[in-house]
Amino acid sequence: MPGQLLFSSSSKQGSSCFVTNRSVMVDKCVGKSVPRKEGWEKVTGAALYVDDIVKPDMLHGATIRSTISRGKIDRITFEGDIPWDEFVIVTADDIPGENSTKMFVGEQPVLAKERVNHPEEPIVLIAHADPYLVRKARTQVKISYIEETPCLSIEDSLNKAPVVWGEDNLFKTIRINKGDVDAAQSEAEIIVEGEYFTGASEQLYIENNGMIGEYDAEEGVTVTGSMQCPYYVHPALCAVFNLPKNKVRVIQSDTGGGFGGKEDYPTIIAAHACLLAMKAGKPVKLIYDREEDMVATTKRHPSRTIIRSGHKKDGTLVFMDVDFALDGGAYMTLSPVVLSRGSIHAAGPYRCPNVKILGRAVATNYPPHGAYRGFGNPQSFFALERHMEKAAKQCGLTADEFRRRNFFREGDLTATQQVVQDRVDMRELLDQALEAADYHNKRERFKKENEGNPVKKGMGIAAFFHGSGFTGGGEQKMASIAGVEGTKDGKVRVLAASTEIGQGAKTIFSQIVADALKLPYDMIEVARPDTDDVPNSGPTVASRTCMVVGKLIQTASLALKQSLVQEGGLDEDYTPEQFAQACKDYVARNGKLRRYSQYEQPANIVWSDETYVGDAYGAYGWAIYVAEVSFDTRTYEARVNDFVALQEVGKVIHPIMAEGQVQGGVAQGIGYALYENIVWKNGRMMNGQMTNYIMPTAADLPVIRVLFAEQPYASGPQGAKGVGELPIDGPAPAIINAIEDATGVSVNQIPATPEILMKEMEAAGVC
Amino acid sequence: MPGQLLFSSSSKQGSSCFVTNRSVMVDKCVGKSVPRKEGWEKVTGAALYVDDIVKPDMLHGATIRSTISRGKIDRITFEGDIPWDEFVIVTADDIPGENSTKMFVGEQPVLAKERVNHPEEPIVLIAHADPYLVRKARTQVKISYIEETPCLSIEDSLNKAPVVWGEDNLFKTIRINKGDVDAAQSEAEIIVEGEYFTGASEQLYIENNGMIGEYDAEEGVTVTGSMQCPYYVHPALCAVFNLPKNKVRVIQSDTGGGFGGKEDYPTIIAAHACLLAMKAGKPVKLIYDREEDMVATTKRHPSRTIIRSGHKKDGTLVFMDVDFALDGGAYMTLSPVVLSRGSIHAAGPYRCPNVKILGRAVATNYPPHGAYRGFGNPQSFFALERHMEKAAKQCGLTADEFRRRNFFREGDLTATQQVVQDRVDMRELLDQALEAADYHNKRERFKKENEGNPVKKGMGIAAFFHGSGFTGGGEQKMASIAGVEGTKDGKVRVLAASTEIGQGAKTIFSQIVADALKLPYDMIEVARPDTDDVPNSGPTVASRTCMVVGKLIQTASLALKQSLVQEGGLDEDYTPEQFAQACKDYVARNGKLRRYSQYEQPANIVWSDETYVGDAYGAYGWAIYVAEVSFDTRTYEARVNDFVALQEVGKVIHPIMAEGQVQGGVAQGIGYALYENIVWKNGRMMNGQMTNYIMPTAADLPVIRVLFAEQPYASGPQGAKGVGELPIDGPAPAIINAIEDATGVSVNQIPATPEILMKEMEAAGVC
Repeated sequence: MPGQLLFSSSSKQGSSCFVTNRSVMVDKCVGKSVPRKEGWEKVTGAALYVDDIVKPDMLHGATIRSTISRGKIDRITFEGDIPWDEFVIVTADDIPGENSTKMFVGEQPVLAKERVNHPEEPIVLIAHADPYLVRKARTQVKISYIEETPCLSIEDSLNKAPVVWGEDNLFKTIRINKGDVDAAQSEAEIIVEGEYFTGASEQLYIENNGMIGEYDAEEGVTVTGSMQCPYYVHPALCAVFNLPKNKVRVIQSDTGGGFGGKEDYPTIIAAHACLLAMKAGKPVKLIYDREEDMVATTKRHPSRTIIRSGHKKDGTLVFMDVDFALDGGAYMTLSPVVLSRGSIHAAGPYRCPNVKILGRAVATNYPPHGAYRGFGNPQSFFALERHMEKAAKQCGLTADEFRRRNFFREGDLTATQQVVQDRVDMRELLDQALEAADYHNKRERFKKENEGNPVKKGMGIAAFFHGSGFTGGGEQKMASIAGVEGTKDGKVRVLAASTEIGQGAKTIFSQIVADALKLPYDMIEVARPDTDDVPNSGPTVASRTCMVVGKLIQTASLALKQSLVQEGGLDEDYTPEQFAQACKDYVARNGKLRRYSQYEQPANIVWSDETYVGDAYGAYGWAIYVAEVSFDTRTYEARVNDFVALQEVGKVIHPIMAEGQVQGGVAQGIGYALYENIVWKNGRMMNGQMTNYIMPTAADLPVIRVLFAEQPYASGPQGAKGVGELPIDGPAPAIINAIEDATGVSVNQIPATPEILMKEMEAAGVC
Repeated sequence: MPGQLLFSSSSKQGSSCFVTNRSVMVDKCVGKSVPRKEGWEKVTGAALYVDDIVKPDMLHGATIRSTISRGKIDRITFEGDIPWDEFVIVTADDIPGENSTKMFVGEQPVLAKERVNHPEEPIVLIAHADPYLVRKARTQVKISYIEETPCLSIEDSLNKAPVVWGEDNLFKTIRINKGDVDAAQSEAEIIVEGEYFTGASEQLYIENNGMIGEYDAEEGVTVTGSMQCPYYVHPALCAVFNLPKNKVRVIQSDTGGGFGGKEDYPTIIAAHACLLAMKAGKPVKLIYDREEDMVATTKRHPSRTIIRSGHKKDGTLVFMDVDFALDGGAYMTLSPVVLSRGSIHAAGPYRCPNVKILGRAVATNYPPHGAYRGFGNPQSFFALERHMEKAAKQCGLTADEFRRRNFFREGDLTATQQVVQDRVDMRELLDQALEAADYHNKRERFKKENEGNPVKKGMGIAAFFHGSGFTGGGEQKMASIAGVEGTKDGKVRVLAASTEIGQGAKTIFSQIVADALKLPYDMIEVARPDTDDVPNSGPTVASRTCMVVGKLIQTASLALKQSLVQEGGLDEDYTPEQFAQACKDYVARNGKLRRYSQYEQPANIVWSDETYVGDAYGAYGWAIYVAEVSFDTRTYEARVNDFVALQEVGKVIHPIMAEGQVQGGVAQGIGYALYENIVWKNGRMMNGQMTNYIMPTAADLPVIRVLFAEQPYASGPQGAKGVGELPIDGPAPAIINAIEDATGVSVNQIPATPEILMKEMEAAGVC
């Protein structure tokens, strides 16, 4: 029956199988776990990451960075036993165009000139043919400063103590208002208040950042490197070098992970490499080591959220008043959009007639915080789902019953007054997840077993949703373009700037095109993202690659086919061989055969950036995560023993990869909740090594059991919505809720390291 | 606020203005009443209808038809003072390929060979250079028959009295089942039963049917003429002449109306003209006069509907049991699909947990009934909306309150268990329509005024909906293709087989393309539908041209633009002049610049043709119509004094044309309800002239006040759904309901001519 939720089941080994009564085309490629398109290259070592690429006569670069958090640059001296005359040295004065990364207000400099606003801010670039000499030389560039008082917390920033950006430290303020929270105060019979904190965290992609810059007076600037968004780098380089579009070329090399960490920062590294290359007249490679990558580039925004909610005695939400604040670091960069997503989702998947959300992103003197998978939502949902737990308790309800009473239903309006079109029943999802987790039986059993046992076990739930694609009018403004090409060899080549960063873009694109053209998967190729070759399909962010770009290449594929049928005489019931021959003939006759499709906003998506009223996203992914956690009252260590992740994502294009994305997201979420703690000193990360910044390893992780529901979305390819970010939103609150279930202690801060847990448990008199 | 219904208002002069708070692009072409694209040609007489076209050496053809309803052909003789040796004469024996129109089972012959199954079935074709001689000669072809007993009513056909088709006279049986009607019998507190009849009616397009056939041994067959669906004619001619696709060419000449009447029948005329042309070796023109067109071609299916409904005391629907039967005439033709639409809509826009619909299309020996605007729905909704009136009365509720209690709400399932995605609140539409009609005040006033007055006035409501596009998997199977071309003159040319038949296809296509490319309206041209030039965008039927084909050309337009930007070096912020120049350059360099788009089913539309469960249509139009009628108890004449037509159609592309479509549909509906009566004799229409088949003229019509609501549909161009057919669905029941309101007499048969009304009123003792 259409409109009904369709379930898949998952075995204990974590593999997924699908049960669906939707009509399925035979021999479809989508929905099958085909081999990864770039898998062979990766496992054989044929894949070339940026550091594997060697250009003739290439130099090696390094970046000299601020050692202080805020102040004026006084003097730069080149010291030590270094042959400085052999070095290429670049400062802000060498920039031919704008000294700006071009992100939003464009205030972040490519190289600091007169002052610095955060530790590790780049000031001087050096390059030399000998990389070992470069490593030595970078320590011998000495910079003295006239220091100023930095601002190093959200609280201080809101209190303008001191003002370090603009007039009030506020990068962006968002106000979402639905109903009348003030008037609803009197209707509430129970008031629940809470304050919640999340720390910064590092994306920890496998491959560190790196770029190779080249410059030619004739050709202009070419950069090759690790990145998510070639078309973010491209306009920035045009501005930095004051060059027209066709004199700047950006090529993505094979990229080992991104998670948002390669969304904006690669623009700076690309500019640095190219500035060095221009001055040197030679190619320059600039590779960050792990520490530089960790301490200097962006991290997840720390947050502080204050929630006040009103309820009827039966738990029903009457109002929610959310004060959501993010620490943006020293420059605006992506903070307004991170804030936007986090604010829009801050009231969760709950029906509530009166909602007030105040979102603020503030300036501090940390290195700018930036994109990290989830993009504001992990912060929002940690606060909200911890708060819902608190509210359930105060209303005398169980965690599941409280949520069940408050979930969105058909036709309800979100905080932005969007009628959710996805026909997903959260109550049904909840029941399925709890059953898969054996939630009720386990809770009952743990209650008995915990008595007198130094290891306490508990169960925790998180319920959440995540908009796919850019927020509000973002996709409309971007108006992405993607295409396909019929090649002279009779193959079909996907043309998109969307990058393969380990998430499977090449594979799912190939699957979508194979189905659209009814061709075998191995007839499909994917062009390397190169701004000279592929159109701007938008950045590889925001859970948009599959849903938005996938749809575009599906549409372009049909246009390609039609050209061959209408103009190339291809029979409509072609075989793959006939299709290939028609491509070859067409290209021989007419030259290139490329067909494009451009994003156009579905007419029913309406949004106001002024009022924050409207359809914030075309579609959402929906999820219920359930964590089983044990807490050792002797060591204060928490450990996740079992994890059920159930999500509705429209259509699963590639089951194994989708499952992998969820498992990876949950693993990151476990790190976010319990392990990954950044030690700051004067705004600088002090534990920038993987030996002391602790991410969970396989030994720390439970089997992560993944379940999918599918409710196709009309504007996604074969119904697909986004799946990339959703899995990082829920683990942390589910885990901390489970700790509360195990111990009765309410922890409202992550990462909940043993040190934090010890403090909380001792304060509560539990251990 | 998104998700909310947006209203337009209408002045008393019938013009529409729009109030919407949706964000609107400035300088958009869509939404404006731009001049009709083909208007200049039509008003100056430059437009060439088929009878205006003269080919060198052309002959004139005529068709000799059966004079009986059923029997074997005995002998054909050519008599009278006619130079028969100068004539080209064609019979079934001259057909080189299949003697079939290729519609569904393909059983309808192009020319009857051994037997005839209905009056006016074509048997012999003649042609001569002198049209006056042809007119004389056609009366001198004498055919004798061995007659058989015909079947001439739905009742007889169901009773197999006699069997005239297959084993049981059933062209198609459809069963729709939701819930359990049998089990629900006991839950109902009130049972309402009724039987409803609708008559046949004629489309009465301004231009009669006509075709010019040409044949060339090398080129094959070419036909030019009045038609809705070039790509229905094309495969049929391939089969009739046993020619490959590229040897058959079908060109639509300017066409004066269709209303469904030029959906399937032109195939027969095209085949006839070409058979004559092949035998003659010369072009042959075959034009029907009004009588031939009326008596020989298709009409709206007569229907009989039996409804049994169960209600709670408060009126709430508990079950609906509908037995819906259509008279299909002698051959299957389009009857299965007409039945399908009528059956799917038969339970109306009402929430009802238990629905059983039995739909049957039966064979009789009338000329095949075929497509006519509404396509089964005018029949369904006449029955249903009369029945709802009856049910309201039996439940002691007013017509409006009864409907209000039973309308679909958010998340309800239709009879086919489709969750209606259109966010339209029928209660709100009803309130608005009643207010516009001054319904409550007028009813009160009329109640007083009617006392002792020989002219009784009343108000009637109809509530209905109409699916846009093909039913169920129809659009998916059709997989329509449309395109746009950048021309060597720097214009953009729409490539679609969708025909301009007076409804405005050329204009709305141009508007959609103008907006998609941000070009002025006059830079857009529309190619003449010619199967050698345009792809198969599907037939011009089923309220699909704007929503389905419009979306395709919008998508193709974006692809065209991208080619110019990516390959032609066009700047993305181009001016119209730059765009034109880029087109010219591209064409000069590469030859043609054509880009296509193919329909792909949104993933959330799922339908089973076997079970009739699922998403019957991607979107629906919704409407409330209110009629004010006076009935003269002395002459038995009813007259419509005022009419309010309020509909939700997604997005109004062209306000004046949309309003015109509604006014035209309501006018046809008034004819259907009160005036247009076919007098049958032995299966033949006896009043095939416009002097005795009475259609309403301007003098018979009220001001028709048109109001639009807009709730954009994601998969329509700028949100548009279909508007073409909806307006014919509601007028008849609204008018007959108003007569009941005026007189208290329940009339359940249309057309309700004075003769019928006299019978009913006298039986009820009213007059």
